[in-house]
Amino acid sequence: MKLAQRVTHMAGHGSDGWEIYYAARDLRAAGVQVINLTIGEHDVSTDPAILGAMYESARAGNTGYTIGAGKPVLRRAIAERVEARTGVRTRPENVIVTPGGQAALFAAHMVTLDAGCRGLYCDPYYATYPATIRATGATDVAVPTLPENGFQPEPDAIASLADNARTLLINTPNNPTGVVYSRATLEGIARVVLDRDLWLISDEVYDTQIWSGEHLSPRTLPGMADRTIVIGSLSKSHAMTGSRIGWLVAPEEIVSAVADLATNTTYGIPGFIMDAGLFALGLGSDFEVRIGAPFRRRRQIALDAFAGSNKFRLVPSGGAMFVMLDVRATGLSGFDFASRLLEAERIAVMPGESFGSAAAGHVRIAMTVSDDAFRDALTRLLAFAETLTVTA
Amino acid sequence: MKLAQRVTHMAGHGSDGWEIYYAARDLRAAGVQVINLTIGEHDVSTDPAILGAMYESARAGNTGYTIGAGKPVLRRAIAERVEARTGVRTRPENVIVTPGGQAALFAAHMVTLDAGCRGLYCDPYYATYPATIRATGATDVAVPTLPENGFQPEPDAIASLADNARTLLINTPNNPTGVVYSRATLEGIARVVLDRDLWLISDEVYDTQIWSGEHLSPRTLPGMADRTIVIGSLSKSHAMTGSRIGWLVAPEEIVSAVADLATNTTYGIPGFIMDAGLFALGLGSDFEVRIGAPFRRRRQIALDAFAGSNKFRLVPSGGAMFVMLDVRATGLSGFDFASRLLEAERIAVMPGESFGSAAAGHVRIAMTVSDDAFRDALTRLLAFAETLTVTA
Repeated sequence: MKLAQRVTHMAGHGSDGWEIYYAARDLRAAGVQVINLTIGEHDVSTDPAILGAMYESARAGNTGYTIGAGKPVLRRAIAERVEARTGVRTRPENVIVTPGGQAALFAAHMVTLDAGCRGLYCDPYYATYPATIRATGATDVAVPTLPENGFQPEPDAIASLADNARTLLINTPNNPTGVVYSRATLEGIARVVLDRDLWLISDEVYDTQIWSGEHLSPRTLPGMADRTIVIGSLSKSHAMTGSRIGWLVAPEEIVSAVADLATNTTYGIPGFIMDAGLFALGLGSDFEVRIGAPFRRRRQIALDAFAGSNKFRLVPSGGAMFVMLDVRATGLSGFDFASRLLEAERIAVMPGESFGSAAAGHVRIAMTVSDDAFRDALTRLLAFAETLTVTA
Repeated sequence: MKLAQRVTHMAGHGSDGWEIYYAARDLRAAGVQVINLTIGEHDVSTDPAILGAMYESARAGNTGYTIGAGKPVLRRAIAERVEARTGVRTRPENVIVTPGGQAALFAAHMVTLDAGCRGLYCDPYYATYPATIRATGATDVAVPTLPENGFQPEPDAIASLADNARTLLINTPNNPTGVVYSRATLEGIARVVLDRDLWLISDEVYDTQIWSGEHLSPRTLPGMADRTIVIGSLSKSHAMTGSRIGWLVAPEEIVSAVADLATNTTYGIPGFIMDAGLFALGLGSDFEVRIGAPFRRRRQIALDAFAGSNKFRLVPSGGAMFVMLDVRATGLSGFDFASRLLEAERIAVMPGESFGSAAAGHVRIAMTVSDDAFRDALTRLLAFAETLTVTA
């Protein structure tokens, strides 16, 4: 009885990068107080009004199968939202509702990648990207970005790895760096994508969380609507991580292929969750601003906390729930820094190395605790970092 | 921009077998009254108490990420349930919770099949089986069963197709036939599976709906617990089709591989739905008997309706929500019979051909309308069938 090759293929090599997270969890379980800045999840639950809408829908009998691309009314609402935000003509036929953004990411790669071809993605990357590509049977190839370029991808680096590639996956605003890709970056990416005849898979799940600059969806660039697959979700924008509702916006042939795949993978998502999602979208941008506000505030707290430091600089970020700190002045890896920080200060952050090799010597700081706790943690983190440079 | 080969590969060839279903839906949309006996779904919604438990959990804050194999308390409840029902030692580590039985079916094949090898399944089959296997990149191979054997699979037929096969998928109680596999059948299957070193994927989602005989899980047979992957679900047993909650029970190496895959495909299922599932399981077997009772009654109605007919016989079934009628005496295909029945009587049934070639000349009758409507529909169906044999 053999297992599929993808089982070992998915696993990759070496550590999974979550040691600090597990260590922090174990400490907490042992009763030790730890400030957890590892997790990309709101410190609030889903809004009671959204849960009420879900319950109302369920009680009204929306508890049966919902095969297909999603309720027409929800597909229309998502299409209208995307069109309003981007100006790109978007019809319900361009939308399929999925059980979360991750399911959309997986499906996008499943319908475009064959074994033997390459799926590209930018390093540093969200933790699931490599194995998601490998699960399809394709080869995952990381395109390194550089701290000195603010982790903005460079077209030449992409082009140099594009032989035999069929897809490029990007993520802006970015997890783990918080970086928002500039128009110049996205135009450069679009040039390579067009030139090398790739599908662009654009993970935009943080698109409502912009603290500086503006979010540009690459689907708006000339010639790109026909070859861009946008991943969206209510997880981050509406604090609905656990509801597992997201979507994919793409040319109809992709949506149709993903719908066929969904019949064999998930067989629809709960109707009452789709109704909750529709209700959530109807709350308008005021609600989204409210959900994002803590991260906007805490980003400013982080900027203030590190403003006076010459040695420790934040990566120039513009969005999402994270800031990334360059700790190379300590001479330590991100992993060693995070380990010592946890031991000394009981503050847990993610090593940059958890997200690929490009962010080595950095740590990702999730802005997902209260303002006061966050401010206090950063003050202690900086003081601790300063002691390391003194003794280094 | 190419699509993955699996997109065309999944689609297969020819019709999708759902023409009658779509025609009935279109008639209804046009205001024509149609008795719909095509769908395998309860004519009741999910119980309000279960929905209440879901809402209570959501309101209590179970709205965040739930990565992994499922809440420990739910995995334990499922393990205890399976052990109690089968006598096979089952630990929480043998269980992973999935967003429905279909997701478990897909995952089971994803972690066992590689491109180039075969996944076997028995014909007639549940509609998603072939494409689920093809989505992995493997080749789907149907093992025909015979009406004269009551659609019980024959070991020799399986063995003759097992070269290069890695999995065999079976389904008892069976959709579409309602047939419950006998102990002799399952022992024969186990012999081939052991002899040919296959994984047995056993879809048992109708295991609480047994109207005659008894359900035997092949995982209980000697040597089989190590190589059987059982697919379970609350959809049918608890009328929770739309909640998308199911599971897979298997050796730990399979559960571990499926958990890794799930990180890249679905990223967990809603915590409040897991709590609803836990509550549902806690309702005990009385509740399951109540959910199944209409099908038990209607199966008797069907037996009575066809008892006096020499020409039209029901396939000897013992479970699930369906009966299958042999209409070969009309000289028509199942498809032509169903088409004419819809046109003449506005009664929609599924052609046997929708479920493979083995059930040609049969129709599947879902027992999913009220007893009176069901009795009336069968009376009219039989009278209509008799007119066809007169004129044939």
